[in-house]
Amino acid sequence: MNVLIMGAHGQVGQHLVEELKNTGKHTPIAFVRKEEQVKEFENAGVEARLGDLEGSIEDIQERMDGIDAVIFAAGSGGSTGDDKTLLIDLDGAVKVIEATKARNIDRFVMLSAMGAETRERWSDELKPYYVAKHFADMWLEDSDLNYTIVRPGMLENEDAKGKVLVKDTITDNDIYSIPRADVAKVLAATIDNENTYKKAFEVVTGQDSIEDALTNL
Amino acid sequence: MNVLIMGAHGQVGQHLVEELKNTGKHTPIAFVRKEEQVKEFENAGVEARLGDLEGSIEDIQERMDGIDAVIFAAGSGGSTGDDKTLLIDLDGAVKVIEATKARNIDRFVMLSAMGAETRERWSDELKPYYVAKHFADMWLEDSDLNYTIVRPGMLENEDAKGKVLVKDTITDNDIYSIPRADVAKVLAATIDNENTYKKAFEVVTGQDSIEDALTNL
Repeated sequence: MNVLIMGAHGQVGQHLVEELKNTGKHTPIAFVRKEEQVKEFENAGVEARLGDLEGSIEDIQERMDGIDAVIFAAGSGGSTGDDKTLLIDLDGAVKVIEATKARNIDRFVMLSAMGAETRERWSDELKPYYVAKHFADMWLEDSDLNYTIVRPGMLENEDAKGKVLVKDTITDNDIYSIPRADVAKVLAATIDNENTYKKAFEVVTGQDSIEDALTNL
Repeated sequence: MNVLIMGAHGQVGQHLVEELKNTGKHTPIAFVRKEEQVKEFENAGVEARLGDLEGSIEDIQERMDGIDAVIFAAGSGGSTGDDKTLLIDLDGAVKVIEATKARNIDRFVMLSAMGAETRERWSDELKPYYVAKHFADMWLEDSDLNYTIVRPGMLENEDAKGKVLVKDTITDNDIYSIPRADVAKVLAATIDNENTYKKAFEVVTGQDSIEDALTNL
């Protein structure tokens, strides 16, 4: 499948491009904001399309030629204000969902955050972020798209472990974090795994292989 | 009807309390954030309940005893950051909608903003505010509540004129503003006007009486 990755130049996004290349089954196409990022991906043999999540739905749609699946791994990040949280993490995500629907692309994978579904689990300092992720996730669940929502615990920069715990809600594990490289592996593995269709789940480092974890979901 | 006013101490809210008192048909009940605001309303003969839009849905529900209708006239305002835009204008509104549903209260009037339904009409400097209002409005439209969404133009502090233009979308008027006192009159007039049920409309200063405008909607 030709998989468009929103936020391909982000910390999870870069791992994800690599993962999809390595599968052999899929072709990653990077959606990025800056001309220099396009060049960087092209130099690495990856197709990249220049686009802006603050642009219109129509502008985003135009970047979806030939795409079979979309992964939303974009995020405004911790260094910008809550205006960008509203404009990227919420409205940007919703515009991509609407563009995906308009192009009749059926597969959508959302990178969300552990606890986003339940207000009681939102930490005070990250509340605006959780509000944005919560409503973007609900928008996706209410769409007619064939979605998967992946909600990782705290993201770390360690090497991939390849071992995870996957559940609707994780409240009983020793570890509540996960390397970004493993999140990318999980996102890549969901793309054509029918057992993950129309489901949302949380994921942290655990004991299971990713394949087993997604099969037993 | 007993009408709970969220944001009763705000600039529109204070006019709205007066309007509802003056109708003779309705009893305003103020939902306010500070103990001193409760006292202020009680001294003026208005029942007030202390509550927090950043609290839980359950906390908000508990303040809804004996209520027949809810008007959401709260707003984080221009002096707070976009974190409060997310927490009050979006998530606060959605929690009030959910609390209203949970209490089987059937009538909900939302104070929104002109243009909130269409991204192309969002001004750059107010975009985060429009995102929040947009999603709160859509949440309400998708609820099973008997709603009315009132979207005024630019709010002014002049005296009420009592003359308005009301339409789905206003793009062809000389005036794109409206006194807050008139917005309060429109909100109060919608409460038991069946012609406004399950509708959203924009309102600015115009030529029609409020009664005529809502009847011809």
